[in-house]
Amino acid sequence: MPQLTVALDMMGGDFGPPVTVPAAAQALSLLPDLHLHLFGSRAALSPWLERCNLTAHERVRVHYCTQQVTNEHKAGYALRHLPDSSMCRALNALSAGEAQACVSGGNTGALMAMAIKVVQTLPGVDRPALITRLPQADGSHALLLDVGANVCCDAGQLVQFARMGDAVARHVLSQQNPRVMLLNVGAESNKGYEAVRQAARRLNELPALNYQGYIEGNDLFAGTAEVIVCDGFVGNVALKTSEGVARLLLGAGKKRGFWWTLLGVWLKRRLSHLNPDQYNGASLIGLRSSVVKSHGSAGSPAFLNAILQAVVETEHQLPAKIAHLFDTAPQDSHAR
Amino acid sequence: MPQLTVALDMMGGDFGPPVTVPAAAQALSLLPDLHLHLFGSRAALSPWLERCNLTAHERVRVHYCTQQVTNEHKAGYALRHLPDSSMCRALNALSAGEAQACVSGGNTGALMAMAIKVVQTLPGVDRPALITRLPQADGSHALLLDVGANVCCDAGQLVQFARMGDAVARHVLSQQNPRVMLLNVGAESNKGYEAVRQAARRLNELPALNYQGYIEGNDLFAGTAEVIVCDGFVGNVALKTSEGVARLLLGAGKKRGFWWTLLGVWLKRRLSHLNPDQYNGASLIGLRSSVVKSHGSAGSPAFLNAILQAVVETEHQLPAKIAHLFDTAPQDSHAR
Repeated sequence: MPQLTVALDMMGGDFGPPVTVPAAAQALSLLPDLHLHLFGSRAALSPWLERCNLTAHERVRVHYCTQQVTNEHKAGYALRHLPDSSMCRALNALSAGEAQACVSGGNTGALMAMAIKVVQTLPGVDRPALITRLPQADGSHALLLDVGANVCCDAGQLVQFARMGDAVARHVLSQQNPRVMLLNVGAESNKGYEAVRQAARRLNELPALNYQGYIEGNDLFAGTAEVIVCDGFVGNVALKTSEGVARLLLGAGKKRGFWWTLLGVWLKRRLSHLNPDQYNGASLIGLRSSVVKSHGSAGSPAFLNAILQAVVETEHQLPAKIAHLFDTAPQDSHAR
Repeated sequence: MPQLTVALDMMGGDFGPPVTVPAAAQALSLLPDLHLHLFGSRAALSPWLERCNLTAHERVRVHYCTQQVTNEHKAGYALRHLPDSSMCRALNALSAGEAQACVSGGNTGALMAMAIKVVQTLPGVDRPALITRLPQADGSHALLLDVGANVCCDAGQLVQFARMGDAVARHVLSQQNPRVMLLNVGAESNKGYEAVRQAARRLNELPALNYQGYIEGNDLFAGTAEVIVCDGFVGNVALKTSEGVARLLLGAGKKRGFWWTLLGVWLKRRLSHLNPDQYNGASLIGLRSSVVKSHGSAGSPAFLNAILQAVVETEHQLPAKIAHLFDTAPQDSHAR
């Protein structure tokens, strides 16, 4: 691996440095060519840097910031009034070419707004989308997007998401001819709302995509598609609902005695390919550089996974490949 | 139980009479005061009526129909051109006072459109909503609505759904002071799209409701709320996604040898309170009579459960109680 620098917002997420610093230390020890720029408040960050022996690490540069974006901040406010926040400065490092990728566990809306302003979208992309992997029953993976960056989407955006998801499936997951489907409430062509039906008609006209029609929620994990497209409100609810059901079923044995506990341990080991830590890190795609959003509640192993995901995307030159696709593929004839 | 008559659309769902007739027979044997009107095509229905000894049953009246609504029919077409379908005639029996409730496993859009025209909504209700029960981690139940009757909803409709859900929680599930929440992508007041935020403001002003704010998908099964409100697209995706995850986790052991099989049997028994058959039957509420929508893929036990649900709602006089609520409760001051 040639030298690669990732900018980390150390203050994002529910826990901040107690989670992000140990994850950074582990990433550095796993990847000998990885360099990190760490952004955060001196008071919160420095004790943890000492504890994890990162104060004078040769591949680490620490940048102390005086502001912080919280979950209560509106995106517009964060954008205008928090230029010295760890989130904004980590993104600035990207646009200045000091880092190739950025990871943050902070406020999704603010991250999205700042990334659009600071990192900028690729030509032909209206809005970035949050994309994540879903485990499938057959052990493979599907991609779901958007999972929360865009609450409402028009048909043109859904088509762009489909094309970007196709690029990730091909270039990052090495899937050939990935099946692309739109999440809807039924399989028939008259189902859903107008933007979804219009997107379906446009996707049918794009020969470069292997569009396969509508998929319903019960098939999200069935191995039916490689790329599943929806608006950010629906995708976010679907993703979080999945977590809720998994917690209900796998956690059902808690406090119920020996056999349940034993079963829980065994089941979790057998279902380790469904381990949520593995699936932490939704990428904000459609930007000029890789920006990975870690889950707010992520622990260190999950935050580490988000860092590794940023590294993999950068190694695969994902932004350049999406740019190339939008530059050369037959255009969606209805695009604005 | 005083005499109660339920009209059954025997042709709806993926299987028709092979599923609906055995379920009808079992309902009759369970409930000695139940009368049934059965609607379906002679060719499909009569062999199964013979097989289940229902041809001359004293509490059964069979009505042969020449038309059938399929999943491919658009709601408008079904409404205008299929008056002799089993679905339409079963609903007609309600409006004529020949039955007090109706059950169908057919096309949801057509059922909704026909029910609005034939059965009619209660005064003050713009559109009926599909409501269903969700099992909770603590063994209790929450209600989720809308799960697919209205793809897009404005704030006023969401407020109406909240009030109707509250009525079902109080009068059918005997829950006191049920907590009402809106499904959203975050807990903060600025999250979501405009209709949801506007509905939140209006619900905060309704003293009769115990409104508790936003709930996210990961808490749908956490015992956080008794009534969860969303638009029909989001609710349908959330509900079906739950089924998909449950299938992925509980079915993960299939074809994996003895221990997995044994585990599956044991787990399913211990998790029998999550059995999907128990949760079949989403009610179309806000109408002048009870209309229950059975899942299209329901088997006989699940269709039986939908019939029992129609009976329970009618015994609790649910439509009258919702009507009373909309008639007497402090009105939503923003209502049109």
